[in-house]
Amino acid sequence: MINVESIVERIREIIDDENTKQLKEVLNGYHAADLADIFAELSSNERLSCFNLLEDEKASDLLEYLPAQLQVELLGVIDQELASKLIAKMPHDEVADVLGDMEEDESEQYLDKLPHKFSSEVRELMTYNEESAGGIMNPVVLTVSAESDVKDVLETIRIKAEKDNLDLYYVYVVDKQDHLLGVVSLRKLLTSPVRLKITEIMIRDIVKLHVDDRQDYIADEFMKYQFNALPVVDLYNRLKGIVTWDDVQDIVEEETTEEIYTSSGIATEMVEDEDDILTGNIFHAVKARTPWLFITLIGEFIAVNVANHFNHTLEILPVIAIFMPLLAGLGGNIGTQSITLMVRGLSTGQVTLKSAFHHIMRESVIGLLIGSLFGILVMAVTWGWHHHVGLGIVVGLSMAINMTCATLIGTLTPFVLKKMKVDPAIASGPVIATTIDVIGLFIYFSFATAYIIQLKG
Amino acid sequence: MINVESIVERIREIIDDENTKQLKEVLNGYHAADLADIFAELSSNERLSCFNLLEDEKASDLLEYLPAQLQVELLGVIDQELASKLIAKMPHDEVADVLGDMEEDESEQYLDKLPHKFSSEVRELMTYNEESAGGIMNPVVLTVSAESDVKDVLETIRIKAEKDNLDLYYVYVVDKQDHLLGVVSLRKLLTSPVRLKITEIMIRDIVKLHVDDRQDYIADEFMKYQFNALPVVDLYNRLKGIVTWDDVQDIVEEETTEEIYTSSGIATEMVEDEDDILTGNIFHAVKARTPWLFITLIGEFIAVNVANHFNHTLEILPVIAIFMPLLAGLGGNIGTQSITLMVRGLSTGQVTLKSAFHHIMRESVIGLLIGSLFGILVMAVTWGWHHHVGLGIVVGLSMAINMTCATLIGTLTPFVLKKMKVDPAIASGPVIATTIDVIGLFIYFSFATAYIIQLKG
Repeated sequence: MINVESIVERIREIIDDENTKQLKEVLNGYHAADLADIFAELSSNERLSCFNLLEDEKASDLLEYLPAQLQVELLGVIDQELASKLIAKMPHDEVADVLGDMEEDESEQYLDKLPHKFSSEVRELMTYNEESAGGIMNPVVLTVSAESDVKDVLETIRIKAEKDNLDLYYVYVVDKQDHLLGVVSLRKLLTSPVRLKITEIMIRDIVKLHVDDRQDYIADEFMKYQFNALPVVDLYNRLKGIVTWDDVQDIVEEETTEEIYTSSGIATEMVEDEDDILTGNIFHAVKARTPWLFITLIGEFIAVNVANHFNHTLEILPVIAIFMPLLAGLGGNIGTQSITLMVRGLSTGQVTLKSAFHHIMRESVIGLLIGSLFGILVMAVTWGWHHHVGLGIVVGLSMAINMTCATLIGTLTPFVLKKMKVDPAIASGPVIATTIDVIGLFIYFSFATAYIIQLKG
Repeated sequence: MINVESIVERIREIIDDENTKQLKEVLNGYHAADLADIFAELSSNERLSCFNLLEDEKASDLLEYLPAQLQVELLGVIDQELASKLIAKMPHDEVADVLGDMEEDESEQYLDKLPHKFSSEVRELMTYNEESAGGIMNPVVLTVSAESDVKDVLETIRIKAEKDNLDLYYVYVVDKQDHLLGVVSLRKLLTSPVRLKITEIMIRDIVKLHVDDRQDYIADEFMKYQFNALPVVDLYNRLKGIVTWDDVQDIVEEETTEEIYTSSGIATEMVEDEDDILTGNIFHAVKARTPWLFITLIGEFIAVNVANHFNHTLEILPVIAIFMPLLAGLGGNIGTQSITLMVRGLSTGQVTLKSAFHHIMRESVIGLLIGSLFGILVMAVTWGWHHHVGLGIVVGLSMAINMTCATLIGTLTPFVLKKMKVDPAIASGPVIATTIDVIGLFIYFSFATAYIIQLKG
């Protein structure tokens, strides 16, 4: 990997020296992905002057690797003729994404400048939901007719692949109405006798996507079959485009982020654009963060009520109050560990509803072991500190039982939610922590009360 | 996607009917990835009888898709001659993984039965660290000499690709000592005049991996450059193998799991095999889960100490104790949201140290907004419930300040850790929750004490 910082420093030196020729040489020498890293560190002015020194090919490659915000920034400041030329060199799906991030009148200006066929294909892409196969796919696919033989197909590739900037993984065989009939891998093509009919070597049982398939489904299909690309068809099995593995990389990253957000009680479904939660409009961020906090508030008021129920005990032995955070903290943590293990396991497939019983038993044993260990520790410390055997036993015993219960709740809940067809990730955060708080307090105060009654008796 | 449950049901019916011919036809009709899902649901006996009905090609494909545990199970029970034959059809890197999961004497038996060249290549793979490029790569690569022209290369592909079960993404150009000189994409190859020298169309600035590169680095390189495959070289730039994008899918999933585990206070570095935490030896699981719980214990004892410091206040106004879980719960939750956003952002690159200040300011505003909202809510509820204005103000004000502080701590800590070159993910769990507990209690009890003093005065 390149050292971006030192390269940026060097580029700034060359800019200061006003040595345009050297700067041009240096910049064009980098891979577009490296340039994207470098450009992210430059100031807007530096970016513009550097961008203007790039060769067209490099510049359009770089645009693909840049984050949306910088794409729009650069296309907005460079010469519009040049911008249109660069856009026309990018893959259709990338162009649809870039233009989709612009204001509508601005994107229309670009679309008007693009070759008609190109712009109408991009326009069609922009009509699909951004998170569906239609919105993700590249509509330019290498298709051949069922009548071709291997030699014809190789010839077609030679002519078309370079011209149309094609993603080349498979060749798709279609009839005159573009209905998808079969697929041939490049490897099969290259290793087959040139006179064979393409229909003799094509695979007819095709794994394919539908234009309306959602991105989580698409990611699952790719992860499962491990293809480089999957064809996308419409309702009538007409080939509309392909989704490639690099599109899926982005989806997987997005889905993981969503899973992680949900797990920590951020309601992603409350905002249209997830990026708003991290960087956009502050009120959108508040909207996504408040719902689960509000549910926690209600839950914790129940906990307050439980504690209030035992106010008599608190008045007699106020010192028991100071151990409340200890119990809640450790119960919450061990419970969170169990939830995390189950939710992630369910998401990767390592844990299934079938194995639920096994995991519940296993986690219970682990909870009991760790709970006992920490119970004894806490009992010893409390006893040694307050010189109060009874208090030590109450706190230690509550700790052991509380941690075991927390493990059990943390393990059970994701399975129950999964069974109810609710996303188990929502269990991880607020709800469980609050439940554990309520139950933990109840256990603790019950023991404390029993202890006080026994003291009096 | 197929409906595994209903297919398994149907297969069981056919097994009961003892209709072997139909069973064979049905099983061989599925894609190997689908079969893997189906096999996971079958019993060991059913698995064995079904496996024996698969065609060799399908059986070795299926082995690739099965989880390690089932691979070893099946290879252990089927005829050893057949097992060796199937293994020889699998890609080298998969074979090294399967054999690596067996006992050594068992894997030696298989290695002895394999063709000599194959087994010695697999043996070499097994010497590399499983998490390095050497351990992940497939050593069988399509190489051509620098003297070839395009036609020669196409001819080489025709002969070699089928025979050696080659992953075909790029063609690598090497000298007589296997030093990597350049790389040509299949697309470039197919669209170039057949008489051109390969050196005229190859790319010389090659992005490559070193055999010792670690898997997180490999994943980053793939995510950045979005290649289908990267060549792996040794210290002397000799080509040793390639890593393909489907290997990287597995790495990314593993790395994400590690990130999520770390975030919830599970110490993955305490165990050799991460799977142990979820399914393996119970004592390994305990070992991974205890360290951060222990640190929480120490932290919460500090919280207990803070509370104990104010025992005088608690004795005068025991009711303040019952609001402790409310404050800790909401502070913990909003803090966790901020940590999650920063840690995930740092991991995907959406957040950088450069943008730290912006995020700290933004999160503070969000914390202040949500904190004020919840402070007012809590004040109103407490006042209405206990008919005690003073208590309402103390609880509400503490809530507002506590939530704002929690947001700030949750945002700051990941940046501080990142700056100190510590994995920010470890911040997410126990440490922060405990810190927030301690600070929250201190704020709350300070207000309560001030209130009591003011009442007396």
